[in-house]
Amino acid sequence: MAKVVDIDDPADPRLDDFRDLNSSDRRPDLPDGKGLVIAEGVLVAQRMLASRFEPVSFLGVERRRAELATDLEATDAPFYRTTADVMAEVVGFHLNRGVLAAASRPAPLDLHDVLAGARTVAVLEGVNDHENIGSIFRNAAGLGADAVLFGDSCADPLYRRAVRVSMGHVLRVPFARVPDWPRGLNILRDHGFQVIALTPDPSAVSLAAAMTGEKVALLLGAEGPGLVEHTMRSSDVRARIPMAPGTDSLNVATAAAMAFYERVRMTP
Amino acid sequence: MAKVVDIDDPADPRLDDFRDLNSSDRRPDLPDGKGLVIAEGVLVAQRMLASRFEPVSFLGVERRRAELATDLEATDAPFYRTTADVMAEVVGFHLNRGVLAAASRPAPLDLHDVLAGARTVAVLEGVNDHENIGSIFRNAAGLGADAVLFGDSCADPLYRRAVRVSMGHVLRVPFARVPDWPRGLNILRDHGFQVIALTPDPSAVSLAAAMTGEKVALLLGAEGPGLVEHTMRSSDVRARIPMAPGTDSLNVATAAAMAFYERVRMTP
Repeated sequence: MAKVVDIDDPADPRLDDFRDLNSSDRRPDLPDGKGLVIAEGVLVAQRMLASRFEPVSFLGVERRRAELATDLEATDAPFYRTTADVMAEVVGFHLNRGVLAAASRPAPLDLHDVLAGARTVAVLEGVNDHENIGSIFRNAAGLGADAVLFGDSCADPLYRRAVRVSMGHVLRVPFARVPDWPRGLNILRDHGFQVIALTPDPSAVSLAAAMTGEKVALLLGAEGPGLVEHTMRSSDVRARIPMAPGTDSLNVATAAAMAFYERVRMTP
Repeated sequence: MAKVVDIDDPADPRLDDFRDLNSSDRRPDLPDGKGLVIAEGVLVAQRMLASRFEPVSFLGVERRRAELATDLEATDAPFYRTTADVMAEVVGFHLNRGVLAAASRPAPLDLHDVLAGARTVAVLEGVNDHENIGSIFRNAAGLGADAVLFGDSCADPLYRRAVRVSMGHVLRVPFARVPDWPRGLNILRDHGFQVIALTPDPSAVSLAAAMTGEKVALLLGAEGPGLVEHTMRSSDVRARIPMAPGTDSLNVATAAAMAFYERVRMTP
């Protein structure tokens, strides 16, 4: 049961886990710094409590604590109760969600464990936008994809904005790093995955025709540059994301959603 | 050919079309105010120049003017050239795109004209988030949907943020209002459209099975509340957006993308 501790001094060091959330060099969720993971709002805090990311402390107003009361029974982390104004001073801006939870980062999941029970995974390269990463996790969760894997040059999925945009699903959908990129894609093949590179190239086959495997890994690159050629060549097949002439490539999270959708569209 | 006019006084009244862009009661793109449409950045300004939204003036730095030089040959609107600092003072914040274009709003398109050549349209109800509306237009353009129609309670598609998120496609993809909502959906039926309500309800048929019409209108409601029941009842069929158990409904623009994708997935 979380112990409620009232704090009215924004300088109180017990609040350091939530200090300067927008600071690019001091924020507590920098992987090379404190390495925390920050959940914002009641829903995401609940998802954190139900995840492998164990909260170490909470900061929030009484109204949100009351909403979380049942969930807080399952944790021993302290709930620092204060006012919206003190919260704003601590975090550095005005938060309208009224509650934050901080968790430490558990050890990364093992790639083999993540692949063991999976049938559909996304594999990202060069996706360096936190909102896109968050949206990919949200779409994976919503459309029943099993995991998200990271190749080179992606943003941290555990940054606060990615956690928020994912609606907490980065805390639930398993993810792991693919080593020795892109050669490490062979590990996916060893697990029986068909490796499908998504591209706007009109000469590639349709997504629908490309997905022949029982297990599929969907390779997605950044909007604009897309996958690097060497990675393209490491795939089993290139699948075309539909794109009308004269338009831009679709947002990478939208492309992911279409590929996930293609996997489940006939599910009764 | 746009005439280049150098201005270094941020108070110059010729810049009023771009003043206080973030002001909720004075911004120049309020439909009940000046009623302008603001394009941000080179790409969106180019799309505006190629659209039915005729620019009345431009504001930007020399570097961006040079990038637009060829496009600017087609217009007589003045290009107010200034510095990034003066631009920031005029608009009220620091813009990193370096150029803005302002257009007046042309007369709305006629619903019958919009429907005449169309095969796939989205119809929105209660979508009051500008970014979602912008993303829906971007996805419509990218996936070859023909038009976006508005029922009740939607946000203005011509607000700056919607224009930007759409990457200028709100200026290109035709849109119109459906009168007498939701009874006006009969106008779509008169044009041969099958009216399909999208819902996360697991008892509805799959999107794939629901789309039997040669022409389809895809009814989309806001995230969370979804379509109102009266509107649901005004549809021909309810189609299920796939959704894994225990997750949230997908973002409305993502749901739209899947429905558009279902229409084109087998296109060679």
